[in-house]
Amino acid sequence: MVARTVDLRSDTVTKPTEAMRAAMANAEVDDDVLGYDPTARRLELEVARIAGKEAALFVPSGTMGNLISVLTHCQVRGSEIILGDSSHIHIYENGGISTIGGVHPRTVKNNDDGTMDIELIEAAIRDPSFEICFPTTRLICLENSHAHSGGRCLSPEYVDRVGELAKKYGLKLHIDGARIFNASVALGVPVQRLVQAADSVSICLSKGLGAPVGSVIVGSESFIAKAKILRKTLGGGMRQVGVLCAAAYIALQENVGKLEGDHKRAKTLAEGLNKIKGLKVDLDSVQTNIVYCDILESVNITETKLCKMLEGYGILVLPEGPLRIRFVIHHQISDSDVQHSLSCIQLAVNGAPNKK
Amino acid sequence: MVARTVDLRSDTVTKPTEAMRAAMANAEVDDDVLGYDPTARRLELEVARIAGKEAALFVPSGTMGNLISVLTHCQVRGSEIILGDSSHIHIYENGGISTIGGVHPRTVKNNDDGTMDIELIEAAIRDPSFEICFPTTRLICLENSHAHSGGRCLSPEYVDRVGELAKKYGLKLHIDGARIFNASVALGVPVQRLVQAADSVSICLSKGLGAPVGSVIVGSESFIAKAKILRKTLGGGMRQVGVLCAAAYIALQENVGKLEGDHKRAKTLAEGLNKIKGLKVDLDSVQTNIVYCDILESVNITETKLCKMLEGYGILVLPEGPLRIRFVIHHQISDSDVQHSLSCIQLAVNGAPNKK
Amino acid sequence: MVARTVDLRSDTVTKPTEAMRAAMANAEVDDDVLGYDPTARRLELEVARIAGKEAALFVPSGTMGNLISVLTHCQVRGSEIILGDSSHIHIYENGGISTIGGVHPRTVKNNDDGTMDIELIEAAIRDPSFEICFPTTRLICLENSHAHSGGRCLSPEYVDRVGELAKKYGLKLHIDGARIFNASVALGVPVQRLVQAADSVSICLSKGLGAPVGSVIVGSESFIAKAKILRKTLGGGMRQVGVLCAAAYIALQENVGKLEGDHKRAKTLAEGLNKIKGLKVDLDSVQTNIVYCDILESVNITETKLCKMLEGYGILVLPEGPLRIRFVIHHQISDSDVQHSLSCIQLAVNGAPNKK
Amino acid sequence: MVARTVDLRSDTVTKPTEAMRAAMANAEVDDDVLGYDPTARRLELEVARIAGKEAALFVPSGTMGNLISVLTHCQVRGSEIILGDSSHIHIYENGGISTIGGVHPRTVKNNDDGTMDIELIEAAIRDPSFEICFPTTRLICLENSHAHSGGRCLSPEYVDRVGELAKKYGLKLHIDGARIFNASVALGVPVQRLVQAADSVSICLSKGLGAPVGSVIVGSESFIAKAKILRKTLGGGMRQVGVLCAAAYIALQENVGKLEGDHKRAKTLAEGLNKIKGLKVDLDSVQTNIVYCDILESVNITETKLCKMLEGYGILVLPEGPLRIRFVIHHQISDSDVQHSLSCIQLAVNGAPNKK
Repeated sequence: MVARTVDLRSDTVTKPTEAMRAAMANAEVDDDVLGYDPTARRLELEVARIAGKEAALFVPSGTMGNLISVLTHCQVRGSEIILGDSSHIHIYENGGISTIGGVHPRTVKNNDDGTMDIELIEAAIRDPSFEICFPTTRLICLENSHAHSGGRCLSPEYVDRVGELAKKYGLKLHIDGARIFNASVALGVPVQRLVQAADSVSICLSKGLGAPVGSVIVGSESFIAKAKILRKTLGGGMRQVGVLCAAAYIALQENVGKLEGDHKRAKTLAEGLNKIKGLKVDLDSVQTNIVYCDILESVNITETKLCKMLEGYGILVLPEGPLRIRFVIHHQISDSDVQHSLSCIQLAVNGAPNKK
Repeated sequence: MVARTVDLRSDTVTKPTEAMRAAMANAEVDDDVLGYDPTARRLELEVARIAGKEAALFVPSGTMGNLISVLTHCQVRGSEIILGDSSHIHIYENGGISTIGGVHPRTVKNNDDGTMDIELIEAAIRDPSFEICFPTTRLICLENSHAHSGGRCLSPEYVDRVGELAKKYGLKLHIDGARIFNASVALGVPVQRLVQAADSVSICLSKGLGAPVGSVIVGSESFIAKAKILRKTLGGGMRQVGVLCAAAYIALQENVGKLEGDHKRAKTLAEGLNKIKGLKVDLDSVQTNIVYCDILESVNITETKLCKMLEGYGILVLPEGPLRIRFVIHHQISDSDVQHSLSCIQLAVNGAPNKK
Repeated sequence: MVARTVDLRSDTVTKPTEAMRAAMANAEVDDDVLGYDPTARRLELEVARIAGKEAALFVPSGTMGNLISVLTHCQVRGSEIILGDSSHIHIYENGGISTIGGVHPRTVKNNDDGTMDIELIEAAIRDPSFEICFPTTRLICLENSHAHSGGRCLSPEYVDRVGELAKKYGLKLHIDGARIFNASVALGVPVQRLVQAADSVSICLSKGLGAPVGSVIVGSESFIAKAKILRKTLGGGMRQVGVLCAAAYIALQENVGKLEGDHKRAKTLAEGLNKIKGLKVDLDSVQTNIVYCDILESVNITETKLCKMLEGYGILVLPEGPLRIRFVIHHQISDSDVQHSLSCIQLAVNGAPNKK
Repeated sequence: MVARTVDLRSDTVTKPTEAMRAAMANAEVDDDVLGYDPTARRLELEVARIAGKEAALFVPSGTMGNLISVLTHCQVRGSEIILGDSSHIHIYENGGISTIGGVHPRTVKNNDDGTMDIELIEAAIRDPSFEICFPTTRLICLENSHAHSGGRCLSPEYVDRVGELAKKYGLKLHIDGARIFNASVALGVPVQRLVQAADSVSICLSKGLGAPVGSVIVGSESFIAKAKILRKTLGGGMRQVGVLCAAAYIALQENVGKLEGDHKRAKTLAEGLNKIKGLKVDLDSVQTNIVYCDILESVNITETKLCKMLEGYGILVLPEGPLRIRFVIHHQISDSDVQHSLSCIQLAVNGAPNKK
């Protein structure tokens, strides 16, 4: 049994704060399937306002937020979407857009910074004059910040260019904004500006913002009206859901301001890891709260082994592909947790204080 | 503005009790997508125990509970299920088993008491030797209590007979137990006995039991393991879901005992409605907490009109087909609410105290 | 080995005539996937003309004709169709509309004459104001003649009434016209009149008309344009398909005139069967080329057994449910074949000439 | 009106030969949906023999052959397949595996020679221990010859290596063998050897072999049994299909031997094109019957424009992406057709005999 646990597996592992707990206990609620739960409504309005969109819908998870968004844009059989080959939707969401939704994905290479080349996106758009053998492109998906690139941020200019491309071809643009607040803080650009070109955004409140449960999708009134039916179809309509929305509302108020500190601690952790012999972090990649750390072959430890070893020290992390592990900072990780983690990692990797 | 509102639209409209609110505020939680949230685990174990099944899984809604169950039993393309033609799954769940899951429904007539004739079920089972043009029957679905029949209950003997039939043909049996506790209390038979023959049950905690959100599906370990993946695919995996499970656990402890009173009040309401000139309730149909009330043509009021009129008195009810309205009793409806409702309905229908 | 085989299993078992064979050998053809095969085009134009519709499309089978038609009318996720509970689409086409197309079927009871009560159809149409829990009704399907009722015909007046209902609710009407020519001949009403109210019809040329392969779907130009894409998606686009269309074109010219004789022979067979002790045919049901024959319990032979026994005499028939077998007449069954079959059946059932 | 037309759009544009026409006219046929059409059976046995597999099934098109194969290997919801990012299945088959079949595609970069790097395939295989967020990899697809690489061939050694990888991970291997006979002839390796490692192959008979219609899929007995049901579900079951199979059988006998000549003529065409100023062909890429020709920017003609211009000369070709056109040789293109085409192209591009 370790004396101290530092959970760096994900920013989804946070515990609700006292204020969130109090909000859940006191939430004014109603049956949100039959009509509007007032607390859900308040949260939806607030997120719509922040994102600068007409309407919003609370959903149980980011996966459902993305699934509903893609399927709402692709209601007609024979739809294809363009998305990054290392995007969360493509890799980590069970292939649900196809296996549940019958939507065909067309991937474009994600660059190291999470972008896809505009020309490659354009080349992937199907020519409607060959509809006899092509599916119909209907949607482009971006992800901001982009998890698989280590949480790097897409600039508003880049998003705008993709938006213009989408408009040019009559396509919709969806942004998987699971960590859009991290991107907003890191770039110093309001969320609203970052998603200006998007027709829909899925925004997670239970990652960096620390709400116990929930994401919100935003878009036009008509988009959200259709999305609401699909949420019911998938079984995501919940009754007195205001209890969750009350906590999520607090998360918005309490925790956006803490993201800057998270990002600083991520940098500190990255720099510390980089000093440990046998580990290597691309410091440029650490723009937000995620740190990808490569294990050099010289130390002869697999990623799974290292995770196990660190677990023995009470440091919880996840493998991220061959010889790579992932650290995620959130508002319940302190400066001291970072320092303690570095010490433990140093011990685990080199068995003694670092003298690289 | 009315002085007093009595919400009889559904047993889904209850507000969380103080104990539930406290439980949410104090719940011990963890990331339930990455592993087991301890409070979710405790709830799942308790519901599995009550239902006499190996394992359980918390889901955001009854609709998702049924959807996951059907799709888990029907993982192979080309599956058909047999279910009642007025079952909730067939009528009120967006056709999701087909539109999302690609499962083909084969309906059998629901009798007035919610049963389907065993011979009709048997006749609907596909002969595997004609698989060249038939889908493959994989599942029979029952609903207990059966909403569309006014909340009537299937006896354990009936369920057993369907279970035997299923076994004989190598099929699975799923029970939509959205109100299985109501059936259990009305029949005086433990839940475990009622679902003994079933391979899976979807049990709602946010209907009669009054939890703010959530259902639990139960079945074998292997069934639940597959169901968990599908829950994630649909986007029903939630992070610190223990906050909801804590409230649901209280619901199980607090409110099962109140169902008997609900059923009594439903009877009182039914008898009172029956005395109002122009209304008619089949008293035999009122076995649990649902009262279907027919509007006689003589009073010349449509169901929609009557619902609107009652809303003016603060009595909220829903239409249930032509010249029929529905009342649902739950633990936050008192004897006095029932009497007050009857007075208002009398006024609405006949404009004066009843002298039928 | 029997001296003489009479194949009464289906009207799909015919052999191509000399004229069809010659037509196949001489067909002018082109790549029908890249453009229009001239012979396919000629057939499509001819069937469109006969059906009084704008456009037509050749497909490999009646099953694909129905599947494409339903899916073309139901391109949007969340669609429901209304169809007869003993319709061919619902019972004999693998549930493909759901398992491949994600369309939710809502069945209405088929009367003995193949109709569905207009009021029951109307009651099954979903109220769009409850779209939050209902799929969206988009299509009504009829079948004319109706196989499961023994090939009985829907009158043009009935079809018109269903068409009016569809129009009233903004729905489409599809007719499974696998045997629409049989209905046309039996009723003495042109095909065009019979399908006047329909938005699409699937017409089989390889049943009563005796073409080796193929069905044609008809509808508006825009319907057929969408159907063509779906045909390609399903893999039903064929290259020099004119070879099949040439034979089918001959079938239209040669065999429509023979259907009246088929129907007479079906009546003769039915009357003969009715005279055999232990068998019973509802003569009223024999309107076209199908004869359903019930086996009385008194003779103590199952339908499977009887089929096997008849096979021993060279008479091929198919079982059609418990104690019922099916005979289908086509243009290659002569008067003598009917008499020979009756003799063999008499021997099989009673072991001696009939003295009922 | 041009005096002479040379159709180089595809090898699917051939006309049936006299022998094929005679075979169609004389085919012995039966209802292939109810049982085995003898001519279909003979063809299926022959193709199974050639491919060295247990069983075979005739289908109306290569698209259906691939669709059925993929869906048969992926019967369980939640399946993912690995295939080339420029494979025919991914690009030119309407996305049917997802939009009809609910299968999730995972693409790996196709190299210029049509291969995918073994390590990249391996990296794309999902780790089953993360099934909570991953779909399940079930199938790898290869294409031989590979159309998009200009008809280049995969060596038997390469296919074997992929087969070993598949086996190692418990996956199936499907080969889109639309032009497997071209590969076999070009490599000098029997078809059987080329597909030795595959669990299923889709072989087209209406491309280079010149049959009017049809493909055949091959695999184990149990694979074909399941495939047959799916063929019926999709509507690909055809009645007296022997008429098509008779022609296809002749195609096998007549035309395999002509492929070598096709390949030579393709080379001649390629060399000729390469001599035309403003055009460029990578001669190494011309291994079989396909020639991709790049238009240099210097001549300032788009691919669409050039196709239109050539059409004016009676030379039919198709565009193949930006500044690229495609020529396909088949058994009805003679040496003289090639020379005539080259002359016309020279005139179209440079307006005068070539002096590059």
